[in-house]
Amino acid sequence: MRELDLIQRIRERHGSASGVETGIGDDAAVLRTAGGDRLVVTTDLLVEGTHYRPGDPARDVGRKLVMVSVSDVAAMGCRATGALVAVALRREHMGEWALDLLAGIEGAAAECGVPLIGGDTTETTGPAALCSTVIGEAPPGRRPVLRSGAVPGHALLVTGDLGGSLAGRHLRFRARQAEALELVGRCEPGAMIDVSDGLSTDAWHLARESGVTIRIAPDQVPVSPVAQGLADPLRHALEDGEDFELLFTVPAAAAEEIERSGLAGTPVTRIGEVLEGDVQVLLGDEPLDAGGYEHFGRERPHDA
Amino acid sequence: MRELDLIQRIRERHGSASGVETGIGDDAAVLRTAGGDRLVVTTDLLVEGTHYRPGDPARDVGRKLVMVSVSDVAAMGCRATGALVAVALRREHMGEWALDLLAGIEGAAAECGVPLIGGDTTETTGPAALCSTVIGEAPPGRRPVLRSGAVPGHALLVTGDLGGSLAGRHLRFRARQAEALELVGRCEPGAMIDVSDGLSTDAWHLARESGVTIRIAPDQVPVSPVAQGLADPLRHALEDGEDFELLFTVPAAAAEEIERSGLAGTPVTRIGEVLEGDVQVLLGDEPLDAGGYEHFGRERPHDA
Repeated sequence: MRELDLIQRIRERHGSASGVETGIGDDAAVLRTAGGDRLVVTTDLLVEGTHYRPGDPARDVGRKLVMVSVSDVAAMGCRATGALVAVALRREHMGEWALDLLAGIEGAAAECGVPLIGGDTTETTGPAALCSTVIGEAPPGRRPVLRSGAVPGHALLVTGDLGGSLAGRHLRFRARQAEALELVGRCEPGAMIDVSDGLSTDAWHLARESGVTIRIAPDQVPVSPVAQGLADPLRHALEDGEDFELLFTVPAAAAEEIERSGLAGTPVTRIGEVLEGDVQVLLGDEPLDAGGYEHFGRERPHDA
Repeated sequence: MRELDLIQRIRERHGSASGVETGIGDDAAVLRTAGGDRLVVTTDLLVEGTHYRPGDPARDVGRKLVMVSVSDVAAMGCRATGALVAVALRREHMGEWALDLLAGIEGAAAECGVPLIGGDTTETTGPAALCSTVIGEAPPGRRPVLRSGAVPGHALLVTGDLGGSLAGRHLRFRARQAEALELVGRCEPGAMIDVSDGLSTDAWHLARESGVTIRIAPDQVPVSPVAQGLADPLRHALEDGEDFELLFTVPAAAAEEIERSGLAGTPVTRIGEVLEGDVQVLLGDEPLDAGGYEHFGRERPHDA
């Protein structure tokens, strides 16, 4: 049973309750309040040995815990407004390790401007499990940006660069919240997602939810310096995952200006286009499978 | 390091950010949206071996996962409007066990009328870790009920009965959401909490947050049939925890009518009163220590 199956099962049966605009299947769920405000909310679980190594610095782990959820909120074009953390720790984590974890959590929250509003601490005898929940809101008058809004004729863009994140960036990345907020302030993106499963898989998510073909130009994919030092750099950029860059579509007319200026100081690269046609992702003219990391589907490199 | 320490550390430094009305230290955090709506949000983490036994039925575990968080939202006088679950499972959990877990999650969500709007599934090699997040809203025109609103002269009441929950009820309880919503529809409760740490500890939470003395009448505490069969039943009712009943204060004038009618078909018992004076809890005329279960503070009976 792969990750998508269990989530998919819930989705099939709970897609559209009253008040729920978008449930399972996007970076975050969209909830509508009684007063008509739209909120987004996302939850992520990091497990020792799966999402970080037991020896990784606790401060980096705490930082990642907050950043992964803020990244999901940013991918909805929203600003994080509150964060909760629930952690299960072993006894030997108590003391220095827990304080460093907390410092990382607090530092990331401050960096993202999101207040820590709740928490829960409990004990485990096995791998630590760390859960973050982040709530967010779209800027006034704007709606959350979904995965389903890619339209034929849109350009496909990505912030930063991709690949090789497991060498360290996956613990020290900064959620692209400022970039997302500048983007929605400047134009109406069609669809957006953060690159957590890998470019190929996440492009598939956009294609599937939007019902379109996405074509990626292989020579345009921005490959990280780390991935450039590995065998088959493009493959790393396509499949590694945990880049936490923003992958989004905008009307072609807006793409040039955004690529030229970047977003909030971060480079942006046009890497492809949205086409009418079957749900598929093309790399140049060749079909591209969803090859990114999925839990239970394949092991992460650092678990191997 | 006891549970309260880590949470307290966060609280001391992040108590009152903009938009956050009540952060750490209540059953749920209160967030105010840009449009002025007040939301509550809570997150809970259940760990195999700590909050349930490895052999407990997966369906009961899934049910508990949702119910503990809905119980927190109910204790704020709010209705749950969305639930997210993030689970870390071992490989052998996949298949039947995971489907039963899901059935329990779905059943509880349906029973509480709360849509499942998000989720995350990952793998662990150790004890399963299950995290639930529930969002809620107060009824129109009402504010969330905090722990800090107990006023001298109020009566202290509790739903249902207490003690011996670990014999089974802790897995099969129903969150007192209907009772909470009927309560706030009928009067303005001062303070409310759900009894998760044990009556004595949770009464302390109310006393501390409200800055009052709480006196409990020992002969009025409703002791569960299970606890009545144990040695020292009153002690079980005071200290066991995981009862998930509602403990609340109301103006004395409202108490009699609520005790007579009950709430949503559940009996309600007046067990004490709120007095002016030092922050303390009295059992009759004797000081009562916070003796309920706290993580890292003492072991649960079934871990011993």
